[in-house]
Amino acid sequence: MIVDVSKKILIVGLGLLGGSYAKVLKRFGFHISAVTLEQSSIDYALKEGIIHEGTTELDADIIGSADLVIFALYPHVFVEWIGQNQHLLKSGALITDVTGVKSSIVYKIQDMLRPDVEFIPAHPMAGREVSGVENSTGEMFRSANYIVTPTEKNTPEAIETCIELGRLLGFANVTTLSPEEHDEMIGFLSQLTHCIAITLMTCNDKENMEKFTGDSFRDLTRIARINDLMWSELFITNKEVLLNQMDLFLDQFTKLKTMLQTEDVEGMREMMRHSTARRALFDKK
Amino acid sequence: MIVDVSKKILIVGLGLLGGSYAKVLKRFGFHISAVTLEQSSIDYALKEGIIHEGTTELDADIIGSADLVIFALYPHVFVEWIGQNQHLLKSGALITDVTGVKSSIVYKIQDMLRPDVEFIPAHPMAGREVSGVENSTGEMFRSANYIVTPTEKNTPEAIETCIELGRLLGFANVTTLSPEEHDEMIGFLSQLTHCIAITLMTCNDKENMEKFTGDSFRDLTRIARINDLMWSELFITNKEVLLNQMDLFLDQFTKLKTMLQTEDVEGMREMMRHSTARRALFDKK
Repeated sequence: MIVDVSKKILIVGLGLLGGSYAKVLKRFGFHISAVTLEQSSIDYALKEGIIHEGTTELDADIIGSADLVIFALYPHVFVEWIGQNQHLLKSGALITDVTGVKSSIVYKIQDMLRPDVEFIPAHPMAGREVSGVENSTGEMFRSANYIVTPTEKNTPEAIETCIELGRLLGFANVTTLSPEEHDEMIGFLSQLTHCIAITLMTCNDKENMEKFTGDSFRDLTRIARINDLMWSELFITNKEVLLNQMDLFLDQFTKLKTMLQTEDVEGMREMMRHSTARRALFDKK
Repeated sequence: MIVDVSKKILIVGLGLLGGSYAKVLKRFGFHISAVTLEQSSIDYALKEGIIHEGTTELDADIIGSADLVIFALYPHVFVEWIGQNQHLLKSGALITDVTGVKSSIVYKIQDMLRPDVEFIPAHPMAGREVSGVENSTGEMFRSANYIVTPTEKNTPEAIETCIELGRLLGFANVTTLSPEEHDEMIGFLSQLTHCIAITLMTCNDKENMEKFTGDSFRDLTRIARINDLMWSELFITNKEVLLNQMDLFLDQFTKLKTMLQTEDVEGMREMMRHSTARRALFDKK
């Protein structure tokens, strides 16, 4: 379906990600419309030629004419939108999303969705430290991962279309994982990582530390500047998985602390060699 | 003293740091000699014009003619060297170091040192992910901190000379701290940070994670590639301070975990806002 540029694409939520999707897809020739909260976002996107049309209303024409709808909303807002407005969607429409947690959202949406509309979930693992349609850019997709997380309810066609969407957007890697595999991976690589950064940033408020700060500390706390509304919601919606990852980290950290207490130098060196060897896997290829 | 380029400088330990000191100081016109373990380091440094003379022996002439001696050794090797070889130093010589921990080394050295030789401790907070004299460069000092950690035994002249040395080397910031203040700062900003990185890198060995790794995880684990011999020694020699910093981190991490368990969203958001505000202090000026 997606390769047919006569199809209409609707973006719901025209922020950083929604705007970046619009920008890239419009260049391919698709008709792009947007529904979002702020008129200023619509005005900006129209002025910049990022979208063809947009509205802050629940415009039945715009919503009802879209063949592909991309939801770029906070998790609970996405669920509420579907609950309240799914009657406005076109029969046969395909919908997808950008939500950073999957299990707690995907089954809920698929279970409540009309049978003539299909939801194929995806997570574009891209972001910036700034937000809003004004900062949108396809550049951030170029070295990033796009993960499709289908369930048993999805058709092969929808999965293929969603994979193709990721490729069109220019992602470096397009993969599929189950919602559960996705959540475990993101719980470790992204959410635990943010938990550590905000903990390090707030565990010692001694003054003047910044005068002596080198690159190591800056690297570990870059993501400690965090959108509290979004991340607290992402943590809660992946609660059990994240708690498990936090426990893995706590166990290992406590093991290191015990080795230091008992001056188990060989144990510490072994852990450092393990760390060094494993880190090599994660170098950018 | 230091401004007088007729004085002779000896580097003991011609690795990455020792070599970088030699490289920068030789350009000012000082006579630079080196004592180190490997003949290949001496050969390289002579060929590249980084030093005037060097030896792998305990050469009484070379050691005994130096006015300023810079020790760029592992902490325990530095202590052993002074214990065994201080009789070779010139009367009136000034010695300094590059050791990354202070309290556990500084008093030990000063207590055992001959009364006619003065030790003024310093920590150049610069490094690279590579080692050896072949990788030495003054560039790494340019955005880095140089910290002099004098004690009551130091003379104002020695402190001033050491500060001047840091400026000559080209460090962005040259400061003084007590050995105890230094160790607390380094325990938090550098050692705790490395503990976290190696823990994150080794707490979950699930396969294929690297396929989905983004910049956040890479940033937090860049320093997880670590020299196990050096860092285990640095941890042990700052043990009590580092254990305290690890406890501060553990308490805060456990607090976050409890907030997630109890779904205390407002508590998590408050911690994230605190983190965001505090991180702003640490932006590079």
